[in-house]
Amino acid sequence: MSETIPKTQKAIVFYTNGGDLEYKDIEVPTPKPTELLINIKYSGVCHTDLHAWKGDWPLDTKLPLVGGHEGAGVVVAMGENVKGWKVGDLAGVKWLNGSCMSCESCELGNESNCPEADLSGYTHDGSFQQYCTADAVQAARIPKGADLAEVAPILCAGVTVYKALKSAHLRAGEWVAISGACGGLGSLAVQYAKAMGYRVVGIDGGDEKEELFSKLGGEVFIDFRKSKDVEKDVLAATNGGAHGVINVSVSEAAIESSTRYVRSNGTVVLVGLPGGAKCKSDVFNQVVKSISIVGSYVGNRADTREALDFFVRGLVKSPIKIVGLSELADVFQKMEKGQIVGRYVVDTYK
Amino acid sequence: MSETIPKTQKAIVFYTNGGDLEYKDIEVPTPKPTELLINIKYSGVCHTDLHAWKGDWPLDTKLPLVGGHEGAGVVVAMGENVKGWKVGDLAGVKWLNGSCMSCESCELGNESNCPEADLSGYTHDGSFQQYCTADAVQAARIPKGADLAEVAPILCAGVTVYKALKSAHLRAGEWVAISGACGGLGSLAVQYAKAMGYRVVGIDGGDEKEELFSKLGGEVFIDFRKSKDVEKDVLAATNGGAHGVINVSVSEAAIESSTRYVRSNGTVVLVGLPGGAKCKSDVFNQVVKSISIVGSYVGNRADTREALDFFVRGLVKSPIKIVGLSELADVFQKMEKGQIVGRYVVDTYK
Amino acid sequence: MSETIPKTQKAIVFYTNGGDLEYKDIEVPTPKPTELLINIKYSGVCHTDLHAWKGDWPLDTKLPLVGGHEGAGVVVAMGENVKGWKVGDLAGVKWLNGSCMSCESCELGNESNCPEADLSGYTHDGSFQQYCTADAVQAARIPKGADLAEVAPILCAGVTVYKALKSAHLRAGEWVAISGACGGLGSLAVQYAKAMGYRVVGIDGGDEKEELFSKLGGEVFIDFRKSKDVEKDVLAATNGGAHGVINVSVSEAAIESSTRYVRSNGTVVLVGLPGGAKCKSDVFNQVVKSISIVGSYVGNRADTREALDFFVRGLVKSPIKIVGLSELADVFQKMEKGQIVGRYVVDTYK
Amino acid sequence: MSETIPKTQKAIVFYTNGGDLEYKDIEVPTPKPTELLINIKYSGVCHTDLHAWKGDWPLDTKLPLVGGHEGAGVVVAMGENVKGWKVGDLAGVKWLNGSCMSCESCELGNESNCPEADLSGYTHDGSFQQYCTADAVQAARIPKGADLAEVAPILCAGVTVYKALKSAHLRAGEWVAISGACGGLGSLAVQYAKAMGYRVVGIDGGDEKEELFSKLGGEVFIDFRKSKDVEKDVLAATNGGAHGVINVSVSEAAIESSTRYVRSNGTVVLVGLPGGAKCKSDVFNQVVKSISIVGSYVGNRADTREALDFFVRGLVKSPIKIVGLSELADVFQKMEKGQIVGRYVVDTYK
Repeated sequence: MSETIPKTQKAIVFYTNGGDLEYKDIEVPTPKPTELLINIKYSGVCHTDLHAWKGDWPLDTKLPLVGGHEGAGVVVAMGENVKGWKVGDLAGVKWLNGSCMSCESCELGNESNCPEADLSGYTHDGSFQQYCTADAVQAARIPKGADLAEVAPILCAGVTVYKALKSAHLRAGEWVAISGACGGLGSLAVQYAKAMGYRVVGIDGGDEKEELFSKLGGEVFIDFRKSKDVEKDVLAATNGGAHGVINVSVSEAAIESSTRYVRSNGTVVLVGLPGGAKCKSDVFNQVVKSISIVGSYVGNRADTREALDFFVRGLVKSPIKIVGLSELADVFQKMEKGQIVGRYVVDTYK
Repeated sequence: MSETIPKTQKAIVFYTNGGDLEYKDIEVPTPKPTELLINIKYSGVCHTDLHAWKGDWPLDTKLPLVGGHEGAGVVVAMGENVKGWKVGDLAGVKWLNGSCMSCESCELGNESNCPEADLSGYTHDGSFQQYCTADAVQAARIPKGADLAEVAPILCAGVTVYKALKSAHLRAGEWVAISGACGGLGSLAVQYAKAMGYRVVGIDGGDEKEELFSKLGGEVFIDFRKSKDVEKDVLAATNGGAHGVINVSVSEAAIESSTRYVRSNGTVVLVGLPGGAKCKSDVFNQVVKSISIVGSYVGNRADTREALDFFVRGLVKSPIKIVGLSELADVFQKMEKGQIVGRYVVDTYK
Repeated sequence: MSETIPKTQKAIVFYTNGGDLEYKDIEVPTPKPTELLINIKYSGVCHTDLHAWKGDWPLDTKLPLVGGHEGAGVVVAMGENVKGWKVGDLAGVKWLNGSCMSCESCELGNESNCPEADLSGYTHDGSFQQYCTADAVQAARIPKGADLAEVAPILCAGVTVYKALKSAHLRAGEWVAISGACGGLGSLAVQYAKAMGYRVVGIDGGDEKEELFSKLGGEVFIDFRKSKDVEKDVLAATNGGAHGVINVSVSEAAIESSTRYVRSNGTVVLVGLPGGAKCKSDVFNQVVKSISIVGSYVGNRADTREALDFFVRGLVKSPIKIVGLSELADVFQKMEKGQIVGRYVVDTYK
Repeated sequence: MSETIPKTQKAIVFYTNGGDLEYKDIEVPTPKPTELLINIKYSGVCHTDLHAWKGDWPLDTKLPLVGGHEGAGVVVAMGENVKGWKVGDLAGVKWLNGSCMSCESCELGNESNCPEADLSGYTHDGSFQQYCTADAVQAARIPKGADLAEVAPILCAGVTVYKALKSAHLRAGEWVAISGACGGLGSLAVQYAKAMGYRVVGIDGGDEKEELFSKLGGEVFIDFRKSKDVEKDVLAATNGGAHGVINVSVSEAAIESSTRYVRSNGTVVLVGLPGGAKCKSDVFNQVVKSISIVGSYVGNRADTREALDFFVRGLVKSPIKIVGLSELADVFQKMEKGQIVGRYVVDTYK
């Protein structure tokens, strides 16, 4: 390892789920022979980080834990068996830190579904620290010149909505409805959809959101606060129903509604992870209209490369707000209250 | 039209939903320029016929109505614009009698999803009569030499399960679970699955069913009456979950359960049409395991040809019980009481 | 039929392959019960029309023949069994005039591959006349308000390149190389590719072409007159090879070259119809790089609807030059000499 | 490492391409931290081994070289970063020994197309020795109880034909033609095709081959020595052409012929690696019939697992002839003379 890597660093740590989020000095970790050590500059803050902290998912976190899984930085060291990386490369820490690479899911490129998946900020200390380890096979390759603060949210939010759009199996020219079009995930989804050649119907509430939607390249906005019948409006705007629906909103009612405004042979994609919610669909309707309802998890290595490529080509902008890592507890509070517009990114040096 | 076509014929007619099923003489219909007139010899009896009679689906039937949509017979006349058929050909009446051929669904080969679909035994007088009209483009081409009684249930039940299996997007060698494996649809599904190279787990109840399942070529039988945990048993038998599930059973609980024993990235297929049932799936589980839940309706022209081909090659047997058309009311009664094993076929001349 | 349909009309007819192209009065045809009668306003002129006239393809034309298969006009009459059309609708005559709708190819939506395909301007009198018949199922539905002169070339050239692009199975963000990027087909291909989210490398010769390419939305132009090594240049521009190649150019050498600059697991599409040319590919290279070489013929009904939709949305412009139908022989001459830039469209009333 | 691993071992080594094949004692290699050390019991002998020795491919071998890439054995040691393996597991050495796991091809599961692919018996000492190293991610997992001699040819020949069949994108019930149906690769292809639910037309020469074909489960045999017109015979047997063709034969004429007996919209697969051969296809025919010609290389990790699974389920038998490793030069001689029926396997202890 290089001389310039310090022994200790700043991090946010918690010792029990829901316990204090301590901003403190901890040891810099040592990479395994197959890992990178990444000097994290910025990290996005995601709803999943809130779930990890609260521990309200049916999956245990490691404890104590450093959260965070949208970390962008620079490779400062690496294990002896790492191939294809060098010190100084830009690298990203994503939700899937590493996987076994030998189970059926891994063989098929579905590493996120690996039963032994190692998750950043959940089962592996994540990007809410200045130095983070990441499996070299899974770490994201951030192209040179990318803005590290803006690229951070692409590593999870961007990849996730991009993968969700791919899971809808749409053709250019087809209609995609995005339920919750103007939140953090939604606003990225609108831009990716546009760049992929789809026509976008956005569903969200309020005039500001309508304006934002239009700026992002959306075509038809349906304001659920004003519409008398959202389903009817989507059916009318799309001449028979959206070919695909991305449910960024995790409301049960919104999800069920989407099964009624999707087109025959269309696809409803579930992408959020609400703790105990059910997706309910009328069987008769789903069969007669031959509708698919598809769960889409985070993307794999190829999805990540592709999602980053759209970003560096300037087709997708990431509307971020930067605060210090030390302010993470405040960000979580705002998130719980639903006060967040766009994406918060923490500067690990503040 | 040929001289030998009579003016009147025997049929089962009802005048109100749930009203008397009258076995009586009615006029032989005249085919339109684009239709065939088929002398029906045998017709299968399907649960859908019961729904049509009772009128308990969210879709109106024509009234008065001659039901039936699994009719096998011989072409005796045809309209002047019919191409590719001749008198004497064997032909089948299927659920989709005709469609517009010009909407988006029709263009894409999804004619069953055509908003103007004309349905045999529902919006178009069906095969519970001796002479039935059918659109020449949609009528099934039954290969010469096929047994008309045995082939009848293939026209709907066979095509439907075959299409459901295709909708699961499986590869040869993968596991398919069939929930309700030994009923009328299930026993056909087991055989098609086997012929398609899949490994079959059957779920049903009772020793007789287990024996039947084994005869049909099934590999692992799980008796829900004996199993302490069906989900666990499927997961164990398939080393991690079935790649696909065909829900022939329409129980809400069975459908929800199937979302828990399907493999990551696997597909749950809905194929039955219970009146008001919901498919419920835990969003967290569906997303994290990237599961698809797919509604599969009846097959199209290609699916029909393919399903018939497996039958005429002897890879799928159709276990039927033949009774007279005049006895249809009895068959409906048995069906309502759940007393039917295999498939009833009515002889239109008895 | 309406009173306003005349008994005779202007047309270009030839009586032997390669014989005189006579501009003369002929009878207005009568539609069959399943056909439309379309009052053609404009017709594009395609290389295929030249082949039909010369008779140099391994497929006989009808004789005498009225050529043309890119006809745009208005429905003025229809047969009694036509569904879904009305007098006054805009309609297009395309290469596939009609098909049997009952063979395996038709069942699968590949109507162009129907052994009994009826071809406009080849086996069925085409659009180089003022009144043309067309099968109602296959006739193109031109959206209201479309410019009939500009839409004409979309009906064959547009649909053909759009289908070719679909046949390359690309994802948005991937590279497509278009060999012959600035000719009639190529310039449409560049625009469709752009609208579908692909990145376009164009190969053609000359500064004017480079300028045109850039206006159409292309990203990297390779001038085969200036490049020292076209293959190397494509590999460099695309960081390892184009994911797909559309061979609009029908040169044998260009086609073979494209198998060397396509990426591993990429797809080379053949779309032109040179009389006796061979596609040659080095087996070792094709296997080791897992390359597909795919023949793409004209699109089907869905491809046509989709291609027209991109046009009416303004994403694809059709750079035409309008001349009178009476001048068709001149256009053919220019075509033979390779003097055509863009697409000629004939006004059937001049 | 365990005490029982010797320092030296028997191997076949050559020092120049085409030079002596020396049967001699060499050092046992040491696995890298990410590698297994496999005690090879048996190794299949493949045409590729002959090419590697002769050096007649456009790709350099390492020198000196131990050939062989169908090695079956037992894990006796492993590097410190290996996950998911333990000493005593059965393991296979396949053509792709290892890859970078980070390029686009690797990300997409196409590791064989990795530009830095490390090839057993070509760029990495292979299975013609008693102790061979193999990358732990790529090494084949051979299920317990498998016969190590019989499974050896599955590791390359089996996986290769299985992948070729997958590359043809066929559905159960469709026709696949296998050109060269009764050689080493062909006889495996017939069995895999049958297990996948396809109907098999075999093309080969001689009565013995016809008999073998029939035993393997083939349906229609066409003897090119007796047939007056092989293409016509395939078209007749399959009612319009094979949906897919697997060209195990590497004759240029046979490959070109296959483009004429494949069905419209069907797929011709190239799988052999003849040094300088071209695949030639008539462009007009390929376009009008919308034919795909696809290069299929060796399978990936998932293909390997699947191909092995068919073998251990008993659906594919491997007809081998066992000789001693010391006799390898004789086997190569027979191979060059075309005297090999079935597959030779060498016992590394003889």
